[in-house]
Parts: sequence; structure tokens; C-alpha cells
Amino acid sequence: MLIKNVSILQSGHLVLGQDIRIKEGKIEQIGPELQKERGDEEIKGKGKLAIPGLVNCHTHLAMSLLRGYADDMELMPWLEEKIWPLEARLTEEDVYWGVKLGCLELIRFGITCYNDMYYFPDVTAQATKEMGLRGFISGVVFDMKPELLSQVEPFIKRWKDDELIRPAVGPHAAYTCSEETLLRAGEIADRHQAMVHMHISETWKEVDGFLLSRGKSPVEYLDSLGLLNSRLTAIHCVWLSEEDCYLLEKRKANVVSCTASNLKLASGIAPLNTLMKAGVNVCLGTDSACSNNNLSLFEDMKVTAIVQKNAYHTPAAFTAEQIWQFATENAYRAFGLNNGMSVGANADLALIDLKKPWFYPQSNIVSHLVYSMAGGVDTTIVNGRVLMQNGIIPGEEEILEKAQQRFIRLTSED
Amino acid sequence: MLIKNVSILQSGHLVLGQDIRIKEGKIEQIGPELQKERGDEEIKGKGKLAIPGLVNCHTHLAMSLLRGYADDMELMPWLEEKIWPLEARLTEEDVYWGVKLGCLELIRFGITCYNDMYYFPDVTAQATKEMGLRGFISGVVFDMKPELLSQVEPFIKRWKDDELIRPAVGPHAAYTCSEETLLRAGEIADRHQAMVHMHISETWKEVDGFLLSRGKSPVEYLDSLGLLNSRLTAIHCVWLSEEDCYLLEKRKANVVSCTASNLKLASGIAPLNTLMKAGVNVCLGTDSACSNNNLSLFEDMKVTAIVQKNAYHTPAAFTAEQIWQFATENAYRAFGLNNGMSVGANADLALIDLKKPWFYPQSNIVSHLVYSMAGGVDTTIVNGRVLMQNGIIPGEEEILEKAQQRFIRLTSED
Repeated sequence: MLIKNVSILQSGHLVLGQDIRIKEGKIEQIGPELQKERGDEEIKGKGKLAIPGLVNCHTHLAMSLLRGYADDMELMPWLEEKIWPLEARLTEEDVYWGVKLGCLELIRFGITCYNDMYYFPDVTAQATKEMGLRGFISGVVFDMKPELLSQVEPFIKRWKDDELIRPAVGPHAAYTCSEETLLRAGEIADRHQAMVHMHISETWKEVDGFLLSRGKSPVEYLDSLGLLNSRLTAIHCVWLSEEDCYLLEKRKANVVSCTASNLKLASGIAPLNTLMKAGVNVCLGTDSACSNNNLSLFEDMKVTAIVQKNAYHTPAAFTAEQIWQFATENAYRAFGLNNGMSVGANADLALIDLKKPWFYPQSNIVSHLVYSMAGGVDTTIVNGRVLMQNGIIPGEEEILEKAQQRFIRLTSED
Repeated sequence: MLIKNVSILQSGHLVLGQDIRIKEGKIEQIGPELQKERGDEEIKGKGKLAIPGLVNCHTHLAMSLLRGYADDMELMPWLEEKIWPLEARLTEEDVYWGVKLGCLELIRFGITCYNDMYYFPDVTAQATKEMGLRGFISGVVFDMKPELLSQVEPFIKRWKDDELIRPAVGPHAAYTCSEETLLRAGEIADRHQAMVHMHISETWKEVDGFLLSRGKSPVEYLDSLGLLNSRLTAIHCVWLSEEDCYLLEKRKANVVSCTASNLKLASGIAPLNTLMKAGVNVCLGTDSACSNNNLSLFEDMKVTAIVQKNAYHTPAAFTAEQIWQFATENAYRAFGLNNGMSVGANADLALIDLKKPWFYPQSNIVSHLVYSMAGGVDTTIVNGRVLMQNGIIPGEEEILEKAQQRFIRLTSED
């Protein structure tokens, strides 16, 4: 495949007139006027920017099916009266179409890889694979449903050799899993060198609970169990002490901030400046469509930037370049992905149509991607396969209809 | 003109299969299966939602030309080293193309009317009129350029009978205008029953300055000059006391919150719950593309909702319906616009393609418009004239090119 005459970013500057050759899922060559080879599919890149795909580092994709079902409620009534009863009725088929609905969004937002935690991980993995996205998929584990833990290792074994799917372990949180469960989850992850996906210190109530009952923050407690390491994606991390930040750095854990979700649930604002000062690898996630309510990392980049500037009382905090790294390079590092706009990297790319008023004047493209982007992704490629071209995703309409049907079935007993 | 088979919102619910007849700039009829009349242009509405146009209640549209030129800087170096030197070089032609660039965005975001404050208001009015949008245009007034004040009344007289343009008075702020200037600006506005557009209490420094020097908050000070009334759009209002909120309500002034801009400049978070409790008419504005950096009210609706929820420590604060009112009904009230989805109202509408993953499942459309909307406005109509149809705005490409040329000229002396 040959992408012709596209623009790319080099040290934040726009370089026009580049061709990108893709072969066997990798970027084989980048440069001006590459010769078309026999059988090369050609993609017109004129007027477009090619970016390496974004990574959404935290979501529960199947919950796209619950988008807009219940907003603007206090956390416990929301969970107890709305979300949990519906989740109890979720079937594999609901999850399948919910994940596909979520994948449509990811593809439309130029996201080529995501980190998921939910029930029915086999179904999530299967639907993701069919949609062609790269996914780190973990089955959620917590004590209320003890069978979940025993399902983790077989799931990992079924998927560990897949090209696109990386199976992972998803202990829900330190307050929903016993010490025994956490240790077992950690052992399984270690045995398979799998990623661990876990909510940590999302609310002050959670942190206060640990400080009172154990004399330790959740981060310190998890460290005492040996769970902090470079294969951990620590989600939320809103209520961290400075010591927590330095401990996370020492153990090389990755922190995933979900700013929009944290704000919508009124959970607070993560101390990203302190984390960065400590040297922690900070990434971004959208959380589910149930608490955000979309899966756009462009939106989360902007919200994160402006909310953090205000929280640290200066517009100079958090440059567009730093925020862009959160959604790209930092995420690649967290997941060990060989992504980027370079020869040999995974051909996980998005093309953005720059002929939109929010990209004009074409002064500082990284600023535009972070602060003014309001649409324009028209092509998404993962592992060298085109998932969307000129804004068209084959099969989209069927997925929208099926999702609607599944939602009606789910809520018909309300 | 007849919009066929479109969906509309009634009390927050989707009503399918409606036709909307538009005649002489007004909505003449709404109902199922209206008969096409001779000469009626037909617009296909199937699968789309018709909404009354949004109103962007604060911007400086010409500054779209400076988008991305300088971000992530402290306020004073940003203004002194970057913005002001560039503004000093701005010509009428720059403003003309900057406004047109901004209009493209407004049209693409379903905004049919906006409230502007800047230099060269005649040029802004002319460009807005040519683009077909409704605009409340004020020439900015401050003491450093005394000639600005004397230009206000002639400007109002030139435009007061225009169908789309409402000329207004734009004293910049209480800290940049003397008492004399403010009184004169107020007199001109009273004489012509014109709106007054003014930045108020944007930063704590501004408010502290007034409290120290005058023993009054800016709101109390402006009230003592008789400037608070129902024709005032009080922009920002980040640092208000509870007394300020009740005073603004007593005088029936309109408050315009610019959440994204306030966060990006690290100015703070406006006390919208207190304002609403006091009964103040709260509206939304994006501010300019220089501090936001786009003009999407959809984005500002979401950012406002989630940031305010977090500020007031509960996800139950600020429902999607309330936020939707800020951008529509409250703004119509502020500007005395007869807008809305009703017979006799201005035909200022946008059509949104609902076949997007972020609108599925179609559970709660108002929630989706506020929380998950990520594109889909494909038709915008103002005063019965189609400004964009199926995503196409005639002349867009020329405007993008001209804006790029003006920006290159402006910055070539850097």
C-alpha cells in the first residue's frame, strides 16, 4: 500500500509531499515521490496529515451500549439503580455489539489501539479482532463474582498468540478485590508477562478508606503486594500523595488519566504536574461512554490540557506537545508498541483532512490537534489494513442498528 | 422551502417524521406530511435532527486568524510579546478574512447567531452579513485608543436597520475604560436601545484591584454607573461574590460563561450554580480562537457541564437539559431573539446527521448533544437561507486560502 503526497509532522512542523509505503503491517518507507510497486493499493494523501494512531488507555468498550442511559445522577444511585441492574442483564451478544459500536467511535477518532476492562473478554477480543483494531483486553476480576478470577488464565491462553489482541488481567480495584485475589491476579500476569489494568485512587473516599483501615494509601498497599511494575496501567490516580507519585515512578508503573470522566462523576482532578515532575509515564483514557460520554481522545487531550492549566494556576503548564505525547508516545511506551511515524513501526495510522476551518491558519499543527480539532479524521489504518477510508467504515449502519436493538431489549424491562 | 421527514425534539424526546415549512425567513408550519407548494425548495431530513440554532454569546471572531499562533504562555508575555504587536498590524482586510474564517466554524457548529467585540466593527458586520449569519456586533472601546469611543455611534447608525446585524456597544472592561468612557458608552447604548458587551470579573487580580482601589467589586462599581440592565451581556464573571450574583439578577443582566477559555488562561471557574440559584440568565460563549482555540459551543457545553459538576462536587449538578438551555433558550432571551422550533420563529436552524456512533443508542438525545456530540452538523440555515448543505459551504476553500495568506503576511515581520 502506498499513501501518496501526504503531510507528516517532524518535530512539530508540517512536512508536505511525503509518501508512505506499507508492507506486511509495517511502515516500510517514508519519503517524497516513492515509486508505486506492482499491486500497490494507492491512497491519496493530498491535503491530509498522517499521524501515528492514538491509544485510548482506559475504557470499557461494551458500555457504549449504555451511552446516555443515565446521566446527572449521584454515583451510588447511578450504579445501584441504573448501571448494575442493566449490567446484570447483559448477554454476550449485547457485549459483542456494544464493543463494535465502541470500535466505530475509536476508528472515527483515529484511535488504533485501546485498553479494555469488562465482562466477557473473549467476546470483546473477538469483536475487536473482527473490527481490525489492536486491543489490550482484560477480563474484569472482583470478589463479588469469584468465577471471574478463574476465567482469567484460560482467556490469556486462548489469545496470547494473536496478532492484534493482547490478553491482560483486570483486577477491578483494591477496594473490590481481596488481598488474596490481588495476589493471584498478579501471579497470573507475571506468569504470562501480561499487562495489569486496574482502577486506583479514583475517589477520595476510596483513599480515605485505605488510610483509615490499613494506614496506607491504595498505591502503597498495592506496592506491598508487589503489584506496581512497568506492566501496570494505573487508571485514574486522582487522589495521590506526592509519595504515591514518586513510588509509582520508582516502580515504573504507567498512570492513565481520564479527565473528562473524573469531572463528569465529580471525582476530582489528577495531580498530573506532580506525576510528571516525578517522572511518571502519563497516558490518557476516555473511560466508558457511560461516564464521558464519547471515546474521543482529541476531546480528552483538550480537556486535560485546559483543566490542568487552571488547576496549576498558569496557562504555561502543559504544552500542546506534552499533551500530544500523552496520547501517543507515552502510550506506546506503556504498552511496548512499536508505533510512530518511522520505518519499521506498526502501520497504525490515521489521516486527517486539514481543509477544515479549525486547522486554519496552519500555524502550529500540534496546537490545532490538541486545542482546536473538531473533526476531520477520514482514514484509519491498523496493522496495514484500512478500517475507514474517506469517512466510510464498511458495515457501520448494521452495527448502529444492532446496537439500537440490543439497547431496546436491555431496557425493555425497566 | 420545505424540510421533509426530519426529527425534532419535543420536551427532550425525539419526534420523527416532521416537515418544516420556511417562508420569508420564518418557520411557517411544522407537522407530518406537509404538502409541497409550487416553487418550494426541498431539503431531505431523513435520519437527521433539526435543532434551533445555537448562539455563541462571546467571541472576537477576527482573532480566528491568530489561532495557534501563541499558546501555553503566561498571560502578560502572551499579550505583550505576541497578541498586541500582531493586533497593532491588523488591517481591515485581515479582519475581513479572519471573520469569514470564524463564520465557517460557526456554520459548521450549528451556530446561527453570535455576539462579537473587536476592532473594525463595520468590516466584521459586512463579512458576517455576506456569510449570512446573524450577529450582534460591537466595536471595542477602551481608553488607550480614545478614537474608538467616538466611532461607536456612527457605526450604530449605519447598521441599525439591518436585517441580520444588530450593532452594539463594547466597552472592553471596567479596568480599561475610565468612568467617563463607561458612562458615555452606556448613554449611547441607552439612546439606541443597543446591547452592551463587556468583560467583567474575569480574573481575581481584576476583582482585587477594584476592591482595593474602590471598595467595590467590578459588578458593584458598574451598577453604581447604571450599566447593569437586561441589555448587558456580562462576559466571564468568574470571580463573583454571592452579592454580585444577586445584584446581576436584580438588574436582569445576562451572564456569559466562557469555560474553556477561562481554563486555558487559568483564570478560574465561574460560580454558575450560585448564579442559577440567584435566577440569573446564564449563557455560553467560546471566546476567541486565540484562547480556546475553536468556536464550538458543543464543546463548551460539555466542558461547562463536567467542570461545573466537579466544582460543585456532585454529578447531579447541571443536567444536560440545563446546559442545552444555556446555549439556546437563555441566549434567545438575552438577545430578544424569536428563535426556537415553533411556528413564527426565525428560521435559524441546524440539521444534524444522527447516523453517527456517538448518537447511538438513541436513548437520550439531549444528553448526546451535550455529552457525546463529536460532529454531524450538516446543514445550517439562517433567516431561511441555507448557508451549509450536506457539509458544503460555498466559497469555503477560498476563505481558508485567504486566511492563510493574511496570517503569513501578518507574521512575516516576526
